[in-house]
Amino acid sequence: MRILFENGPDQPEALRFTPDRVRAAFAGREALLDDLDLVFSDTEETWQAQSPTADIIVLGRHVALPQAARDGPLRWIQTMSAGVEDIAATLPDRVALTNASGIHAAKGGEFVLAAALMLNFRIPKFAHDKPRKLWRPEFGPVLATRRVTLLGTGSIGAAGAAHLRRLGVSVTGVNRSGQASPDFDRVVTVDRLDAVLPETDILVASAPLTPATEGLVDRRRIGLLPPGAGVAIVGRSRVFDFGALLDALTTGALSGLVSDVFDTEPLPPDDRVWTCPNLIVTPHCSVDDHATILTDCLDLLVTNVERFANGQRLLRLVDKAAGY
Amino acid sequence: MRILFENGPDQPEALRFTPDRVRAAFAGREALLDDLDLVFSDTEETWQAQSPTADIIVLGRHVALPQAARDGPLRWIQTMSAGVEDIAATLPDRVALTNASGIHAAKGGEFVLAAALMLNFRIPKFAHDKPRKLWRPEFGPVLATRRVTLLGTGSIGAAGAAHLRRLGVSVTGVNRSGQASPDFDRVVTVDRLDAVLPETDILVASAPLTPATEGLVDRRRIGLLPPGAGVAIVGRSRVFDFGALLDALTTGALSGLVSDVFDTEPLPPDDRVWTCPNLIVTPHCSVDDHATILTDCLDLLVTNVERFANGQRLLRLVDKAAGY
Repeated sequence: MRILFENGPDQPEALRFTPDRVRAAFAGREALLDDLDLVFSDTEETWQAQSPTADIIVLGRHVALPQAARDGPLRWIQTMSAGVEDIAATLPDRVALTNASGIHAAKGGEFVLAAALMLNFRIPKFAHDKPRKLWRPEFGPVLATRRVTLLGTGSIGAAGAAHLRRLGVSVTGVNRSGQASPDFDRVVTVDRLDAVLPETDILVASAPLTPATEGLVDRRRIGLLPPGAGVAIVGRSRVFDFGALLDALTTGALSGLVSDVFDTEPLPPDDRVWTCPNLIVTPHCSVDDHATILTDCLDLLVTNVERFANGQRLLRLVDKAAGY
Repeated sequence: MRILFENGPDQPEALRFTPDRVRAAFAGREALLDDLDLVFSDTEETWQAQSPTADIIVLGRHVALPQAARDGPLRWIQTMSAGVEDIAATLPDRVALTNASGIHAAKGGEFVLAAALMLNFRIPKFAHDKPRKLWRPEFGPVLATRRVTLLGTGSIGAAGAAHLRRLGVSVTGVNRSGQASPDFDRVVTVDRLDAVLPETDILVASAPLTPATEGLVDRRRIGLLPPGAGVAIVGRSRVFDFGALLDALTTGALSGLVSDVFDTEPLPPDDRVWTCPNLIVTPHCSVDDHATILTDCLDLLVTNVERFANGQRLLRLVDKAAGY
């Protein structure tokens, strides 16, 4: 069985799949390697040539799947990312898709906490004031008194919720099912969003981008937040009308935004984001810990290779229709 | 017994002592008011005229004590702040000094946590990059893996340490006594500082300014921190050689600074701080919660008035020689 590791030409060294690293991940389960033919691709040429021959593809970055690969023996794709909206939409039914949801929980959960604290301490405002040499203190209340709503209750949202609740924050989760979780004070279904937003001091989104979430927080819903509310985006930017967010930051309707994700990345030089006030930009790096991500991803892969060989259900299997 | 409440002309409305607010604080202990003559001062003229007649002074802001007040019946000063280095040095022995240490713990503890998270997420760098339209991600490890040293283990430091340890951070406290505290992994005496600094990823100072702490973290000691360490200052800026900090931020020896306090406040327009890279400025507001500070301070005052009347030891009594 041929397994293709796709690095892509720009993959950082810390995230690069190599024969040594892959073999190390199979330590203790070396027998699984007997049935595997390990292939590595670092260029567009090798990707085009080798993907049509692969049974399994491990994607280090998101690239388009050649038609010849769709027509080949391919049965399973494992990604290193959590967001897979682009891949999920293009796969034939017979190809299983597993993502790396969960391996971002430790850093992503800390980022949810950091973002909520920054918004409450008005860091987006102070960062905007500094180059303008403005000394404008704000003496607001502690975060423990604020109401935080997490849109998305996956592994990042749940880890963040747990941190926030340990501070005494009241945390509402919003998801598709409304299923209760011990990490949240309450979880409501997404159709209750309009009722929750007016009771939200800080909104943190870690929701995946799916047909159901794209554009969900539109201009009208942003307007339902109380005056001076803060927003943080850890997941996908297109869950929001980002232009409406920037308008609300400029008028002061929102007190701050902390965002790790943007509609176009890297941000082009003429993007409004760069000059928008009261906005902390983290350049899409706040859930990725390069010290652990490759090892964690390979550990997941080895477990899934074993399950695949045994005909068991794969872990982190994506519902391709739902998109996550 | 005459008790003088000094507001000063610039006191924010939320922090202003008024007869109604003071009387409300004595609810349930109104008998104590029978022996008190409440006097309020809002101007320099009334301060000069009334302070020489006061037995007790409650200081809403720090002002110089007239010589006539020193020579008067004055026996006790209660401040609304924790830092009292300027007042402590000027008081006659017979005048007790009590501060508001402790009422800043809730917000200050959250700020210690926020500052450590911001430093680890490289927010000072990203805030500097944004007006320069630079997209330069950093994929560092989670805070839970970092070593945080808290210089000062008072109420703010201890509250911050407790938050950090709940995240899994290893927290070292540094203080005068080295006395162990359940909020820290270990506490060492300040003469061990040179040994601790090279093992510190993030240094957070909440120490009072005293003859023993002034200039403690000088240029040499800043150089003992590992390359890329971060620093946060919640307490007094003069515990550091602030110019040496700015130099280290400019060269990149330090990766970031989050500071709530500065040698001159408000920062003058030509201060180097405004243009220094990798520096988050919060304008001396990060431990003060205006929604609760006056009430908390008056609650402490009422308790102390009762203790004073009964000849008991006052709470939050400052060691004037030590300066805190």
